Amino acid sequence: MSITDDVKKMKAAAPYLAASTIEERNNALRLIADSLKADSDKIFAANKQDTDRAEADGISQAVMKRLKFTESKLNDCLKGIEQLISLDDPLGKITLERELDEGLTLRRVTCPIGVIGVIFEARPDALIQISTLCLKSGNCAILKGGKETANTNKALFELIHEAVIKAGLPSDSMLLAQSHSEIDELLDCHGYVDLLIPRGSNAFVRYIMDNTRIPVMGHADGICHIYVDKDADKDKAIKVIIDAKTQYTAVCNAVETLLINRSIAKEFLPKLSKALGEKGVKLRGTGEVNDIINVETIDEDGFIEYLDLIASVKLVDDVNEAIAHINRFGSHHTDSIITENENTAETFMQMVDSAGVYQNCSTRFADGFRYGFGAEVGVSTGKIHARGPVGLEGLVTYKYRLTGNGHIVDDYATGRKQFHFKDI
Amino acid sequence: MSITDDVKKMKAAAPYLAASTIEERNNALRLIADSLKADSDKIFAANKQDTDRAEADGISQAVMKRLKFTESKLNDCLKGIEQLISLDDPLGKITLERELDEGLTLRRVTCPIGVIGVIFEARPDALIQISTLCLKSGNCAILKGGKETANTNKALFELIHEAVIKAGLPSDSMLLAQSHSEIDELLDCHGYVDLLIPRGSNAFVRYIMDNTRIPVMGHADGICHIYVDKDADKDKAIKVIIDAKTQYTAVCNAVETLLINRSIAKEFLPKLSKALGEKGVKLRGTGEVNDIINVETIDEDGFIEYLDLIASVKLVDDVNEAIAHINRFGSHHTDSIITENENTAETFMQMVDSAGVYQNCSTRFADGFRYGFGAEVGVSTGKIHARGPVGLEGLVTYKYRLTGNGHIVDDYATGRKQFHFKDI
Repeated sequence: MSITDDVKKMKAAAPYLAASTIEERNNALRLIADSLKADSDKIFAANKQDTDRAEADGISQAVMKRLKFTESKLNDCLKGIEQLISLDDPLGKITLERELDEGLTLRRVTCPIGVIGVIFEARPDALIQISTLCLKSGNCAILKGGKETANTNKALFELIHEAVIKAGLPSDSMLLAQSHSEIDELLDCHGYVDLLIPRGSNAFVRYIMDNTRIPVMGHADGICHIYVDKDADKDKAIKVIIDAKTQYTAVCNAVETLLINRSIAKEFLPKLSKALGEKGVKLRGTGEVNDIINVETIDEDGFIEYLDLIASVKLVDDVNEAIAHINRFGSHHTDSIITENENTAETFMQMVDSAGVYQNCSTRFADGFRYGFGAEVGVSTGKIHARGPVGLEGLVTYKYRLTGNGHIVDDYATGRKQFHFKDI
Repeated sequence: MSITDDVKKMKAAAPYLAASTIEERNNALRLIADSLKADSDKIFAANKQDTDRAEADGISQAVMKRLKFTESKLNDCLKGIEQLISLDDPLGKITLERELDEGLTLRRVTCPIGVIGVIFEARPDALIQISTLCLKSGNCAILKGGKETANTNKALFELIHEAVIKAGLPSDSMLLAQSHSEIDELLDCHGYVDLLIPRGSNAFVRYIMDNTRIPVMGHADGICHIYVDKDADKDKAIKVIIDAKTQYTAVCNAVETLLINRSIAKEFLPKLSKALGEKGVKLRGTGEVNDIINVETIDEDGFIEYLDLIASVKLVDDVNEAIAHINRFGSHHTDSIITENENTAETFMQMVDSAGVYQNCSTRFADGFRYGFGAEVGVSTGKIHARGPVGLEGLVTYKYRLTGNGHIVDDYATGRKQFHFKDI
């Protein structure tokens, strides 16, 4: 049986999951947590198979850290599930309620998106986070994880799927795709899959975006900026830049380009360069920057995503030039201004066209957990629907419900009746 | 100069329009209304050129009615602009406000989508509606209308554009595309155009969707259903079906498929057939339907969009079979159930996966004006962001604004500080 057949069955099951109560969905989450705790031995044994193989393949220590599913990671996941249970039901929320006329009432009500395909990196905790977020929001989930954690994924999926069935929810509401070839089959499931969320390398995300008619949520690049204004507190600037560049370099919300106000450059750049140098960060910059501190020079094409201990530096005249650079060269992810001047900050936050616009803090805050969403399925730089970290709210849409009593349009078109549009 | 260059200038102007105040945008709308009134002669003269040409080309009376811009259409447009002025500012609305920690505050604030390209049919009032909706919502608009109203569009655009400049808003915030070849150029403007809204024939909308990487909002088909339940009030059903099929046949929210509960078919179908026959409506149906009333028979592929005085009929066992048919063969636009049974209605409205789910009323209510949105740029069957009639709210997105005081992630990652997530 092909994955397309499975996806069609899932599509048919989707309205039943959508119609489930919050008690049923929370109960499923509780059963999942219990089962992950009770059968943790199975999970750790499966994970050992994966890590043994990775070790034999000579995988780097950094990657190994991600693959390894530890007691402490399991506890974090269990905490996440508890937080998810405590959050309000994102479904059935009335976001507009209007009497159009006597006896004719319109309501806009949140409902699940439907069938969501998530393709994620080799990180066992990701499978738990994504499947529980989809479940709480009433969405069917097709899960495709990295092959390096295939055994762990299978063990986790079996426990989670069993708990979902035990809770009385549709068996077809969850599906583990196990072979890489199934991704291309999935891309053709237009009409059955409502949304794809790819996570991973830029090239991979772009490949997905370019090869499907299914809507895709996510981001390819993450070129984040920090602009240090003439009215910046310099020590604050250095503290924030170090965090944004070095706290975790391999992620999309790490800063890549530093824009420095020209009037403070001579004084500020040497201090910045020294502080970053001590953390092992190398700077690249325009010729003008090289005149002040010694850097590898770059031109317009040089403002790229490094995901490494490297940052680009450029001087700008004022906040407007910073905004213009960010809107042109950025990836509309997250950008921060360091300034004590509230007017300048307001201009920056108003005019930078990104999912996150920050003042006096690190770009690394762009994250579902840190926003209080419990978890995230990804970060979106799209503007059509969800933007920024995508938690429960990003996983629901709405439908308009209209209730009448034989109401017909012709009465209004011909003027026999008039709408009165009363919000209730 | 190519339209791509114009679009790039527009992209640079977009943050300035986004930062304009509601007073500035409302003032522009007032100036537009004044100018359309004062210079109506110019508009009517231009429209006469278009209609003279159409007449010479032997265009049908139905199309001519759409092309002709009359005093009464102008008055409707002016009323629409007044309503738009009276609506709240859709920008700058705080939809989430949360203190993450002492001094670290997150706000989700609505903002314009940016640059929107709207390709619309030959209807002069559409240009006025679309450009004023975009203006009120702070969006730059690329307008491409039908060639049959080219002179009217040019006259309208010049008056509107002049008023926008007079109001102090960016000159580049509005642009009229005049040649058809510019559409293909527009489809390549990924990165500069944030959203495309095509209106027109199915084939045209599909062509747009298949040939651009820019997000597209809208719908191709509009296969709307009415399900007549066993607990239906039969007279109400006939009244609603006649309105939904005949009040305006050439539109996406007209009903195309009638699903009839099998237990009432023998009694109901002859009545329905007679009532529709008197309105000139021809029925097609399954073999089973043909056994009761004389119809042209169709199979599974026959449930299509007619946009004409024709409807498909099928019998179903119950509401679940109706839901399964609608979710499989429908276009997720608008579907209605006729029943006096509230439980059955709830099941239908919960489980039908469409932008509009109605009880006891006509599918023709699916319209921005009838929902109290003032006007609409189109109807969306997509689920990612706007769904259903798209008014001001469908034209805005949001950004997350985070304000701190040197806050860094490392403090939280290492446990020196804890988030406290207080909604305010």
